[in-house]
Parts: sequence; structure tokens; C-alpha cells
Amino acid sequence: MRVLEADLTWTGNRFESGVQVAVGEDGRIAAVGALGRTPDARLAGRALLPGFVTAHSHAFQRGLRGRGETFPRGSGSFWTWREAMYDLVSRLDAATFRALCVQTFREMRAAGVTAVGEFHYFHHREESPDAADYEFDELVLAAAAEAGLRIVLIQSYYHTGAVGQPLEGAQRRFRSPSPKVYWEQMERLAGLIDDSNRQHGQGRQSLAASVHSLRAAGPDDLAAIYDEARRRDLPFHIHVEEQQREIEDVLAYYGQRPMALLLETLGTATDLTAIHCTHTDGEEMERFLAAGGTVCFCPLTEGNLGDGIPAAPRSHPTSGAFCLGSDSNARISPIEEMRWLEYGQRLATESRGALRNEEGNVAKLLLDAATLGGAKSLGIDAGRIAPGLWADFAALDLGSPMLAGWTPETLLEAVIFGATEGVVAATCVGGEWGEGR
Amino acid sequence: MRVLEADLTWTGNRFESGVQVAVGEDGRIAAVGALGRTPDARLAGRALLPGFVTAHSHAFQRGLRGRGETFPRGSGSFWTWREAMYDLVSRLDAATFRALCVQTFREMRAAGVTAVGEFHYFHHREESPDAADYEFDELVLAAAAEAGLRIVLIQSYYHTGAVGQPLEGAQRRFRSPSPKVYWEQMERLAGLIDDSNRQHGQGRQSLAASVHSLRAAGPDDLAAIYDEARRRDLPFHIHVEEQQREIEDVLAYYGQRPMALLLETLGTATDLTAIHCTHTDGEEMERFLAAGGTVCFCPLTEGNLGDGIPAAPRSHPTSGAFCLGSDSNARISPIEEMRWLEYGQRLATESRGALRNEEGNVAKLLLDAATLGGAKSLGIDAGRIAPGLWADFAALDLGSPMLAGWTPETLLEAVIFGATEGVVAATCVGGEWGEGR
Repeated sequence: MRVLEADLTWTGNRFESGVQVAVGEDGRIAAVGALGRTPDARLAGRALLPGFVTAHSHAFQRGLRGRGETFPRGSGSFWTWREAMYDLVSRLDAATFRALCVQTFREMRAAGVTAVGEFHYFHHREESPDAADYEFDELVLAAAAEAGLRIVLIQSYYHTGAVGQPLEGAQRRFRSPSPKVYWEQMERLAGLIDDSNRQHGQGRQSLAASVHSLRAAGPDDLAAIYDEARRRDLPFHIHVEEQQREIEDVLAYYGQRPMALLLETLGTATDLTAIHCTHTDGEEMERFLAAGGTVCFCPLTEGNLGDGIPAAPRSHPTSGAFCLGSDSNARISPIEEMRWLEYGQRLATESRGALRNEEGNVAKLLLDAATLGGAKSLGIDAGRIAPGLWADFAALDLGSPMLAGWTPETLLEAVIFGATEGVVAATCVGGEWGEGR
Repeated sequence: MRVLEADLTWTGNRFESGVQVAVGEDGRIAAVGALGRTPDARLAGRALLPGFVTAHSHAFQRGLRGRGETFPRGSGSFWTWREAMYDLVSRLDAATFRALCVQTFREMRAAGVTAVGEFHYFHHREESPDAADYEFDELVLAAAAEAGLRIVLIQSYYHTGAVGQPLEGAQRRFRSPSPKVYWEQMERLAGLIDDSNRQHGQGRQSLAASVHSLRAAGPDDLAAIYDEARRRDLPFHIHVEEQQREIEDVLAYYGQRPMALLLETLGTATDLTAIHCTHTDGEEMERFLAAGGTVCFCPLTEGNLGDGIPAAPRSHPTSGAFCLGSDSNARISPIEEMRWLEYGQRLATESRGALRNEEGNVAKLLLDAATLGGAKSLGIDAGRIAPGLWADFAALDLGSPMLAGWTPETLLEAVIFGATEGVVAATCVGGEWGEGR
């Protein structure tokens, strides 16, 4: 047992002083409060937040940073960007893939992220119609262990190249031949993860299920995999309505838009996270949230890809209805993601305080998305500083010039609207500290 | 004479190695190129950019950081934010005002900014209908000198509280009674600035003229002050069409929208910078640019205030047609401003590469806005690394994890789309170096 005390600790609704956090040998928080103990570590000049959770990442896409940003043949789109991404895919060998993942995961941790949901569809060493090695799955897990990051491997089923079309070219490295083979690989991964967690003495790795999108699989496979995931109590993730063309294709083939088709096919949204929902109708998003779903926004990537600004619901969403993802990892900054989730809504509605909770609090809603919303979406015991949860923290430097003028009452707003990951002094995953930037 | 050599130097169109920059005792660049000299300072692991220019700032508004971001009575707007800003104005004494300005200017410099255009309308110590002390004008200049920042004091004429309305409450601390008194104060300021520049041995301070907006002055005063500014060869700045209500008020009173009224009143836009243009019609913006004007966007503030996304012209703007401002200084990051200027356009148009120059280059257009566009708008010899200009630089840390994977060809894109001010290792103003973050 080790007791920490920072100048200020986020206790779920406010920053408080005099709060001690006891961390057990198992990497979990044992107790929080005025424990009357002499702290083993007095974090002077620091404020303690729950570590950020990025619920949606494609780590290897970090290899595109700074690339595909010139447009000699006129403006581009998500689809021209995807060509560049497929080009990267076709060139990556195992060593480079792993190195990119380590780089991304380290950059995340330095930016205050303590857990990542890696939406992983890039499974195979080679472009081959019967690619069956799944070598890259293991590399993702190994990279997260090397970077000291908690990971939920969101193993993604990718079966068709477009609605009703076969996989082509680089896409063949994503191939999942059938739900049966998918679950066989999930069994192997569960074994690997158990080994890793045993070796580490605590549970840093877990699994979630996924179908990439309704571009990459039809409703039958979607239902089969979601139902089995429910039976196994695994979270389930899927990309939904990021691009207009994707909606048009699904509408033309199935007679329904993706979100409507998803809700009709599954009948519920329990443990289901829909990524993006950029063009989801506001009422339909409310219906999805009411059915238990979580929406994952990725403001930096959605900005970079020119997806559009989602119509986030106005009706005071509950804590954890939203989460945030760094997606393409073109830039890694949970603080900037939080800020621009709200700013996108402000720009679209020409008002301020667009995403506020029932108390009119914007910053708390954004922090909840970046912490407990992500933890809920990934099914991990994290996202708050509370007994029983993992000791995953981001320690902020209260002396940063970016925060000058803070008070306990305005500190969270100063961080989210006025700062960046430069204020992250250190992060802690399962009780183990590493440096921030 | 002192010769610098970084690993890479931005020479206007690309990063090049082997470039030596000779800086004279007068604080100006004497020569650039393969000078065949042994460098006095070898900046290893650094890339040299022209220092960033923030062309539009209200430094004292840094005092609002983290404040006015909760909305217990429902969503807010620019106008409710303005009430909070006026509340700050009514509380600021000279010492606090100056301290806020120093803090802001230091934070700018750490973020890579080497010159600021301080749009200064907060002139007086007291709320008084005949406030005539102009004490705060001097404080701004002193604060910039203390922070080692190049400053253009954009002295702003503020005469009416709204279209055709008298000043009220805190606004009385902004008061300019007449163009005649305005120019008398400009004479006094010119004297102060001459003294400061002489003392420093180089010209770090200069003046620009301004009318706050068509809310704060009528067309007659606007024309009088602009014409005199032209005669004195001073740049001229004015807020234009940031908010719909401002447009409605001007339209109702004058029968024209602000940009149309501005163009009709002045007949030209030479040396004229229009701030925001958030709701300016695309064709009208083209007309303004064709008449010689510069548009100053402030993406972080416009996001924070929920202004909206401007309709930036699609027709390959010339270098320096745009500039960038940190405005309310809710957050200070020229790199984030560049990124979100483009991302705002991508989100609004659902495409990528929205703001590209004739070569299809987005990053270069954005860098030009953040450097030479700002220098043009402020009328200072800066914005490029070229002989005769001030030795104003930002040195980037090439070893930053945010830039990992860079090549000379992708470095600028990696900085603008993938990084933040954490990559700024140091800044140099007129040949004098200071640390970055």
C-alpha cells in the first residue's frame, strides 16, 4: 500500500485538497479521502486527474503524420486520404508496424492517456486472400506492454471491401473470413492476454469485440458477432456514419441508413459504442443513447478528415454517454479533443455552452467523456479516482504558465479551454508512474 | 555580427540544411545562405522558422481564462461572454492590468510568437464619462518590453457603446471622445515609443491605427481616422462581422452590412485588416481582398465564443492575404490556430485541403498567415528569414516525439497538423534569444 497526496485531487465533481489516495500492490485504488496517513509521496504543485482514456485508436496510422496533407490535384476527401492510408498499410512490415504502435502508445501516455481502446483491423503480415496469420494482433498487445499503457484490444471483423463487395488490395491484410474464425482468434488472444496479465501481476490488457462498419460486414455477421460478444460480456464497437458516401451506399443496398439498420438489427445498444456518428440524425442519436449506447467522437481526426460536425444531442446527456478517440493519431492530445468537441458544437450552433450537463457544466461533461465515458465504453475499471478502480492518473503541473490564475473552481476549465498536454507532468498506470512530456 | 546555423531553416518555400543566418548588431538579418562561415551558434537538433506573428490580441482578456465557461442558466453567447469581459474590465486596476499583459506576452513568446498586434481599446484607469488619462496605453507598451516581445500597439478608437448609442458602464474606460483627441494621444504614444526604441537600441515598438468596429464608431469617424492613418502610413485594423447581431444592427441603422459599408465608406482596403469576417459573404470577402485588404482569423477565440466558421475564399489566396490572431487569449497557440483555421474549413466543406495555395499546399499557406501575413498586416519588417528583416525566429525541437518520423519534406505538415507549442524550444526577437516552453 502506498499513499499519494497531490495539492488537489479530482473527486468526481470538483478539485479538493487534503485528499489522500491509497494504492494497493494490485495496482488498484484502495481508499480515497482524508485518510489521516503520512503520504508516501507528496505530489507538490500537482493536481491529480483520472488518466485519460482514448476509446478509439488506430495506432499504426501515426505513420501518416505530416503525410497526405498536400493537394496538388485539388481538394481531397476522406476517400483520397484512405488511399494514402492503404498505401501505408501495403508498405508496413511487422517491425515497422510494431515500432509505430510503440511510438503512438508512448506519445499517448505522455499526453495524459492511461488506457487505449485499439480498434484493430490490420491483422495480417501479408496481402493474401487467405491471410490467416493474425501476427499483427500480438504486436499491438506487445507494443502497449512496452509503452506501459493499459489496452483494450478491440478486435475488429473486416469481411467486405465495400457494401457487398470483396476485399481488394491492401484490404486483404484486414481479412476476417467468418464469425467462426473470428471467435477462434479471440480465444487465442484471450490466452495471450491472460499470460501477459499474469506476468505483469495485474490486469492491464483485455478484449472487446467489433465489426469494422456496415461497409466491412453485413447485418447477419454484425448480429452474430454482437450476440456472441453480449454472451461473453465483451464491449462491442463499430464505426457509424462518418461519411455521407457510406450512408448512401448502405441506404442503396439495405434501404436504411447505418444507424437505423444497426438499431433494427441488434434491437438494443447495450455495451455498444458507435464511433463518429458525424451525420447521424439528432433524434436517432437520442434513440441510440436511450437504448444504452455510447457515442465516441474523435474531433481532431474528424477535423483532419473533413468529416463534418456531429449533431450532438442537446438534452443534457448522462455522464459517460460520450467518449473520445484519437482515431488516426494525426495528433495526440486528449485536452485538445475535449476542447474542440465543445468548440465544434459552438461553431455549428453559434452559441456557447453547447454540451453542458444538468448543472450547466461543460468542462465536467467533457472530462467525463475523456475519462469515465471511455472506461465505460471499453469495459474497464477506470475513469474515476475511487476505491476499487485501477490507479490510473494524470498529474498536472499547477505551475504551468498556461494555468496561471487558476483557482480550484476554475482549474478544470483552465485546463480544458486554456492548456494542452504540456501541463501533464506525469502519468500513472496501475500504480506505476511514468513521465509526461 | 553573429552567425547561426540550425539543422534546418525555413527559407520561404521549404526547409533547407546548410543554411547560415547572419544577424547584425542592429537586430536585423544581414545575410542568409551558404555563407561559408563557422557558425557562432550551431543549433543542433533544431529547425528555424520565422517567429509567429499574432496580429490581433486583447492581452488583458487572459484574465478570463477558465472563467465564464459554466452555463447554469442555459447556453450562452458572445454577448453573455461580453458581460463577463466587461465585469473583468470594471475590476482591473493598473497593476493587475499590467501583470495580465506581461503574463500573456510571456506565454506568447514561449509559444513561438515574436511579434504581437495588440488591439488596444482599454485606455483609462477609471470609469468616467470624460476619462482622459490613457494610462493603460503606456502599460501595454511597458508589458511588451518586459516580456521581450515585439509589439505593434493598435490604438483603437471607441466612441459609441452600440450603433448610435452612448458608452455605458465599463465601456467608459474605452472612451475616445473625438478623432482630434485620438490623434493627439497617438502623438504622445509615438514619442513614448521612440524613447523606448532608442533605449533598446532597436525598433521593437510601433503604432497602428484602428476603429474598434462599426458598433463603436460611425462611418464619418471611421473615414477620418482611416484617411489620416493612410497619410501617416500606419496600418489600420477594425473588427468586422464577428456576430450576426452586429450585422443586423448595422444593417438596420445604415441600410448596409458592415463589410459593404466599410468598402463603400473607404473606397479601398489598402493597409486595412478586417478582424474575423465570420459572417462575411464569400464574394464580398473576395472584393475586400482584391481591394488590398487582409483578413485576420482567430480560430481558437471564434471557437470559444461560438462565432461561427467563416466562408474563406476558395480562389487560391495570395500569401499574406490572411493573418491569425489569438484575440481573447483564452488559449495561446499559433500552431493550434493554424491547424484549426484549416480544420474549420474542412468541417464546413466536408473536404480536405480547403485552404491551399496554387501549388495545392495547405501548410505553407497556413504558415504564411501565421508569419508574413501578420507582419504585412502590422507593417513590420518580419515574417520571413531574409536579409533586412528583423531576426525574429522560433526554433523547433526536432527530437520532439510529436515530430517523430519527420522528413524535410513533411516537417512543416507534421508541425502544423501533429504538434503544439511544446515543440518550440526557443524564440528570438531582434537577435535576442529566450527559452520556449
